[in-house]
Amino acid sequence: MKKLLDNIQAPGDVKKLDTHEMKQLCDEIREFLVENVSVTGGHLASNLGTVELTVALHKVFDFPSDTLIFDVGHQSYVHKLLTGRRDKFGSLRRFGGLSGFPKRSESIYDAFDTGHSSTSVSAALGMARVRDLEGGKSNIIALFGDGALTGGEIYEAFNDAGHTKTPLILILNDNAMSISKNVGAVSKHLRNIRINRLYFLSKRRVSNFLDRVPIAGRILRGAIERIKTIVRRRVLPTTLFEDMGFKYIGPINGHDIASLITCLEYAKLEKRPVLLHVKTVKGKGYAPAEKHPECFHGVGKFDPRTGEIAPGGESYSSCFGKKLIDIAALNKKVTAITCAMPEGTGLVEFSKKFRERFFDVGIAEQHGVTFAAGMAAAGYTPVIPLYSTFLQRAYDQALHDVCLQDLHVVFPVDRAGLVGADGETHQGVYDLSYLSSMPNMTILSPSSFAQLEDMLEYAVNEHNGPIAIRYPRGGAQSPFEYEGFRINDAYIRKAGRDITIITSGRMVIRAAEIENILKCRGISVEIVELPTVHPLNEAAVIAAAMKTKHVVTIEDNVKSGGLGEHIADILLENGVQCKFRAFGFPLTPIVHGTIDELDKKYGMDAETISVSIIKMMRD
Amino acid sequence: MKKLLDNIQAPGDVKKLDTHEMKQLCDEIREFLVENVSVTGGHLASNLGTVELTVALHKVFDFPSDTLIFDVGHQSYVHKLLTGRRDKFGSLRRFGGLSGFPKRSESIYDAFDTGHSSTSVSAALGMARVRDLEGGKSNIIALFGDGALTGGEIYEAFNDAGHTKTPLILILNDNAMSISKNVGAVSKHLRNIRINRLYFLSKRRVSNFLDRVPIAGRILRGAIERIKTIVRRRVLPTTLFEDMGFKYIGPINGHDIASLITCLEYAKLEKRPVLLHVKTVKGKGYAPAEKHPECFHGVGKFDPRTGEIAPGGESYSSCFGKKLIDIAALNKKVTAITCAMPEGTGLVEFSKKFRERFFDVGIAEQHGVTFAAGMAAAGYTPVIPLYSTFLQRAYDQALHDVCLQDLHVVFPVDRAGLVGADGETHQGVYDLSYLSSMPNMTILSPSSFAQLEDMLEYAVNEHNGPIAIRYPRGGAQSPFEYEGFRINDAYIRKAGRDITIITSGRMVIRAAEIENILKCRGISVEIVELPTVHPLNEAAVIAAAMKTKHVVTIEDNVKSGGLGEHIADILLENGVQCKFRAFGFPLTPIVHGTIDELDKKYGMDAETISVSIIKMMRD
Repeated sequence: MKKLLDNIQAPGDVKKLDTHEMKQLCDEIREFLVENVSVTGGHLASNLGTVELTVALHKVFDFPSDTLIFDVGHQSYVHKLLTGRRDKFGSLRRFGGLSGFPKRSESIYDAFDTGHSSTSVSAALGMARVRDLEGGKSNIIALFGDGALTGGEIYEAFNDAGHTKTPLILILNDNAMSISKNVGAVSKHLRNIRINRLYFLSKRRVSNFLDRVPIAGRILRGAIERIKTIVRRRVLPTTLFEDMGFKYIGPINGHDIASLITCLEYAKLEKRPVLLHVKTVKGKGYAPAEKHPECFHGVGKFDPRTGEIAPGGESYSSCFGKKLIDIAALNKKVTAITCAMPEGTGLVEFSKKFRERFFDVGIAEQHGVTFAAGMAAAGYTPVIPLYSTFLQRAYDQALHDVCLQDLHVVFPVDRAGLVGADGETHQGVYDLSYLSSMPNMTILSPSSFAQLEDMLEYAVNEHNGPIAIRYPRGGAQSPFEYEGFRINDAYIRKAGRDITIITSGRMVIRAAEIENILKCRGISVEIVELPTVHPLNEAAVIAAAMKTKHVVTIEDNVKSGGLGEHIADILLENGVQCKFRAFGFPLTPIVHGTIDELDKKYGMDAETISVSIIKMMRD
Repeated sequence: MKKLLDNIQAPGDVKKLDTHEMKQLCDEIREFLVENVSVTGGHLASNLGTVELTVALHKVFDFPSDTLIFDVGHQSYVHKLLTGRRDKFGSLRRFGGLSGFPKRSESIYDAFDTGHSSTSVSAALGMARVRDLEGGKSNIIALFGDGALTGGEIYEAFNDAGHTKTPLILILNDNAMSISKNVGAVSKHLRNIRINRLYFLSKRRVSNFLDRVPIAGRILRGAIERIKTIVRRRVLPTTLFEDMGFKYIGPINGHDIASLITCLEYAKLEKRPVLLHVKTVKGKGYAPAEKHPECFHGVGKFDPRTGEIAPGGESYSSCFGKKLIDIAALNKKVTAITCAMPEGTGLVEFSKKFRERFFDVGIAEQHGVTFAAGMAAAGYTPVIPLYSTFLQRAYDQALHDVCLQDLHVVFPVDRAGLVGADGETHQGVYDLSYLSSMPNMTILSPSSFAQLEDMLEYAVNEHNGPIAIRYPRGGAQSPFEYEGFRINDAYIRKAGRDITIITSGRMVIRAAEIENILKCRGISVEIVELPTVHPLNEAAVIAAAMKTKHVVTIEDNVKSGGLGEHIADILLENGVQCKFRAFGFPLTPIVHGTIDELDKKYGMDAETISVSIIKMMRD
């Protein structure tokens, strides 16, 4: 049979399909997604859950005249498929290929770049205000998951949008779990709605209704009235959203395409903000993903037949998780806090072993960090692992609530430095800059699991005050023998005469590669590792520079405000005369690709740096 | 008549008073506050509004065994008065004196340092979790205003707290306006509660009740039951808070001390999170402040008899506001966004003149910045002035939503650098570091009103992409003649032979003072002003350094990650041999005091820097 998907080249093509064909299209899309993502890796479960919803959106609305903003954005695959990007799907999340997130630079159908949670309603409201000022009539839609409701920014936006008369269509994609199991009061509230109420518009009723009334294309006045009556009769407003000022519609079965279309048509007619509550099943239509949606949230390669996922190796995250259990077994005042990321940050075992000392606060980094500050003020030692990119959300709380009070909070900064396939919005290349300009903060950076373990031990049991340990995604480790860790100590990993590389963390590996390359060229490289990257041991830095008078710093962070600039200042202020080059990432959004591809693109690979060094030695 | 206030040395002393005496005490406190703040300046209106509430809290609870956390913290004056700090009130907000905010370092009765909005519930929950782990029974109270409800972090905390069984007393001090007129859906919701419902516990009823039952000291079983019945009968739950999982009590007349005590006693008995909704009048008891609470929010010196406030001079904020009106009159695509600060940021006139292009989004910096990003993505040019310290809240949104998409959002960063009397939590000394490590960001720093005007013109009408203009609190201006502004240009304000000072913004004044001092010592100083502080004009920096071979940078920011380190890196990487010193604030919390006092304390005054330079020239 000829596939319908083959004929979908632009959004208009979906509009030609009838309900039956749309259902077939959804099946084809699911098959396509499983097949492709099993090879490229990516966010599968959430996309399988929003197939019908996305098709219905394209049926009812006219993009790009109308605007669709995806919260977080990892559920935009179906939208990409329907907007002429199917042929590129083999390149998903690969260097130079399709992004796993919406990108304005990629397509006119991507209205706003997202990656972090809970931003969509704010952006949509901003666009709606401009539309109103321009006297426009287009529809602006924000699509967000129930997880996004645990992030404070979306409430700020609700609070602002709820009292306006601005038409805005907010779609809550409620799959009863965000990245991990959802937590909190709002989640409970949604659960109650689900349990207590009948599904809005039973499948049969809508089918009958649709058979009689041609909705697609033109809307008949009578049909509208009929829809309104049905909606009025069946929809019980949920107080939470109604209190915020929204017209509430739902819950709707998110896999019943006819119901979805009816409700979207209805929402389109409203002259004020509408909240459409759609219930979906994460991983829908692919048994392994329905059964274990958390495993298929962000997934690597897997066997599409069996759902068997290629096992991940040991990582800094898992190493952290294990070590924290050892520490917590002896130190009863240690607690662990996660912001909806127990799997990603390696805390699953901890959560089982120390249930009473484990706190999942939701996708709520701001609250999480101040909550940690409260615990620290009360005499405990909270450990709050966050991805570098998500810690950005709690910049103010880390500075204002933790650092200014010099509280003993331990920040394991996971996915620090390049993250690879997730691209621009997720690169952890800013934390060294922003953390190293906060008062009282100490920053460590391990280059091996053993070092991470010792650092964590130090951070929890010996240190006082705020301390961050930034470690990379994955498990790449230093090739040098581990000699133990002491705070502030510098370690000469390789003695040399001609040039000194000062580095830490993942970049110790690059330094070793460079040393190898340059050795063949007759250049003797000294490698100095500074596991304590902030505040710097000035004497050690000066001594290292004095020895060879040629200094290169390499860091897995933007150059601006990072290790290299701190060191440049120390050297210059202390009158150390030397040749100097600082290697870090430039202040441009860092795209997606493998770590090696990205290092190369931004001049951070061993070859490029070696060439620079050779030139520097010659000049 | 002997004053009751004279006998209050510690919290226990309030407990000895009866209702009548407490009322008298409240009158005395108001008189004391008006008299003192009229001399020292400070936050008057909010403290006048919470006199009875604070006295009642001290009557019912035992501090510091029980814990009281003030959201924002500017309403903690009465608490300070009741906890042995009355004698120090003359030093309020002065260098070395009492802080205007709670400070753990100041008193054991200050449980948690605050300054920014919406953090109290998170901290309280963190403390409550530790109490539970330790098997404790103490009461933990967070007191926040209705303004705090517009900030997302408090919802994150509600969401986490609402589903717990942890006893927690959350007090909403609802004065129907936060700093400025409150906005948004929640505000409307509260207004409805106020209008539609009877006050809880009429004054008379409670008085009769209290006369019959001695609540203070011991609680009789019968009394508890009676209270419960009254509460049950009179309290209609408000859905918003009940939906979040709280036991809701209110609204209560916040100036009726007997009602307050009854309700607090009741809240104390609950074994789960309680939300106590207290209605207060900002400025209560002092006619000028009741009439114009916004003028007495943060106030300078005033005449306590008449309420006449010493007029503030022209400032960068007012200059910004005026210029933006001129620009918006010609450019119809310019909008202004404020986060509940139209007065502070100079937008009042704009809001009247361009009502449809003015947006007050609440104390919601995260939403405000993403909202601006949405507007920019839709083709408008939003201008969102924020105090430097509050922009911290939107670090992630500025980076993730604006910078990564290279959107044209204009960030006037008000109160950048030292802010003076507000102290640690409000110093704007981090923005240059955190903004200069974001991709695509440009940062300008004016040293005069004329320069600010030209920069704003450039930022709105010529620039593309994110741009920040950081200007100081107040109106101090450069002594040098203004020569116009061009992006990236460096300006030699004073030619000299021996040493080059590179600086910008407020510190141009310090540079001029230093030049004056050193001239007398026979040292010829060149002053180079860099109004474009990021990205730096490398050629200009190098040329400046080459001329004298002695370079000093001075910045109104922490040194780490700031102007000086960026320049050090440029010089060192380019092999410019020179003596170098970077002057910026250290990575320690910067206390309160006048700008001059603080510059001196942290070695940023002209004398200290001059001494350093003389030494540097000599070495």
